Amino acid sequence: MLKLIQRLSAKNSSDSKLKKSLRSILGFSPKNIALYRQAFLHSSKKESNSNERLEFLGDAVLGAVVAEYLFKLFPYKDEGFLTLLRSKIVNGQSLHNLALKFGLDNYLKANMNDTEKLKSSAYGDAFEALIGAIYLDKGFLVSKAFIINRIIKVHIDIDDLLITNEDYKSQLQIYAQKNKLPLEYKLLNEEQKGKDKIYTIQVILNGKKYVTFEHYSKRVAEQKAAQLTLEKIR
Amino acid sequence: MLKLIQRLSAKNSSDSKLKKSLRSILGFSPKNIALYRQAFLHSSKKESNSNERLEFLGDAVLGAVVAEYLFKLFPYKDEGFLTLLRSKIVNGQSLHNLALKFGLDNYLKANMNDTEKLKSSAYGDAFEALIGAIYLDKGFLVSKAFIINRIIKVHIDIDDLLITNEDYKSQLQIYAQKNKLPLEYKLLNEEQKGKDKIYTIQVILNGKKYVTFEHYSKRVAEQKAAQLTLEKIR
Repeated sequence: MLKLIQRLSAKNSSDSKLKKSLRSILGFSPKNIALYRQAFLHSSKKESNSNERLEFLGDAVLGAVVAEYLFKLFPYKDEGFLTLLRSKIVNGQSLHNLALKFGLDNYLKANMNDTEKLKSSAYGDAFEALIGAIYLDKGFLVSKAFIINRIIKVHIDIDDLLITNEDYKSQLQIYAQKNKLPLEYKLLNEEQKGKDKIYTIQVILNGKKYVTFEHYSKRVAEQKAAQLTLEKIR
Repeated sequence: MLKLIQRLSAKNSSDSKLKKSLRSILGFSPKNIALYRQAFLHSSKKESNSNERLEFLGDAVLGAVVAEYLFKLFPYKDEGFLTLLRSKIVNGQSLHNLALKFGLDNYLKANMNDTEKLKSSAYGDAFEALIGAIYLDKGFLVSKAFIINRIIKVHIDIDDLLITNEDYKSQLQIYAQKNKLPLEYKLLNEEQKGKDKIYTIQVILNGKKYVTFEHYSKRVAEQKAAQLTLEKIR
């Protein structure tokens, strides 16, 4: 009986410690603390209660909130623009960085022993799982407020994303100049299709053939080829 | 002045007609009728106010609501199961069928002249746009109630999806028997990785090599190889 009381009081004290530390990053008091504990149980543990299910849910909630935010922020932009910009905000690298900014690595590490290794997506996954936990604990509006006020407005530089969104050719140019590498956009083919033409563009960087891309617009083909080349060399 | 009054009253009468007809399929009274009008302006019209932006938003809201629904319906299933099942509910074909069940073709056709042609995804796109309109008009909870009570519970047979979800091997078997084609699952490789084994399975149908898939579970490798083969031959 005494043991049970000791165990319960130890659990209570660790719960209230976690609550306090979460409150400071969330901006509100979490209620169902078990959900947040689960969000920090990374899946490599192969436990049935790992954070993978919460990650699935959080991913969906994050996607919807960011969709609405961008929809309203850019009333005159088409859905291609919105889709691309959203993927810049919620991609793996971005979520990874956000997780570190929120200090989620400490929560994850607290659940690990020294020999365990995290998979590279573990931080980003935990970040999405945290959003899933918030959603289940507090509902849609609190999740939305958290995502907009504590994530997007504080940590996401949309102007910066807009630049990187649209100017891959410039970025590749800067890279080539910095590393003193000759850069060429070679027009491999130009084919009449109906009343339109399809252009096939190849990026050749430092004499090496990188990516080939075809499109009805030469400008788009060059931009896409530049983007894919950047993904390869970075 | 008289003309203006006539035009306004014509608009009001057509608004109230649309409101009435929408109320019967939505189960609530729409407020901002312009949003719903926009949801039925298909994008082939190339108008700046087509339904593509609403479709982007609706797609995200639908994804989140279905995610939560399945998360709660299947508390012991992993995120791979949930992801697959969700994609069965919200894929293009499923949305197309739902759009027809809700009679959205009539709303779309009302915005077209005789020579126009709809692209094949137009109905499904309009269905997602409708959800986007509901979300902007009435908020998350009404959208969620609509999706769960008027779509999933009425029109989606989850048991049926579960069967098609999990039994690709049987489906391929049926296909092979019907067409009198010999079918083989060849174990190409079996490799020790840590304490687990990775199995590489190849589907050979009528002597032709189709898909190769590797997985820790032989059963999963066979199912996935069968699924991908079905996608190729159908």
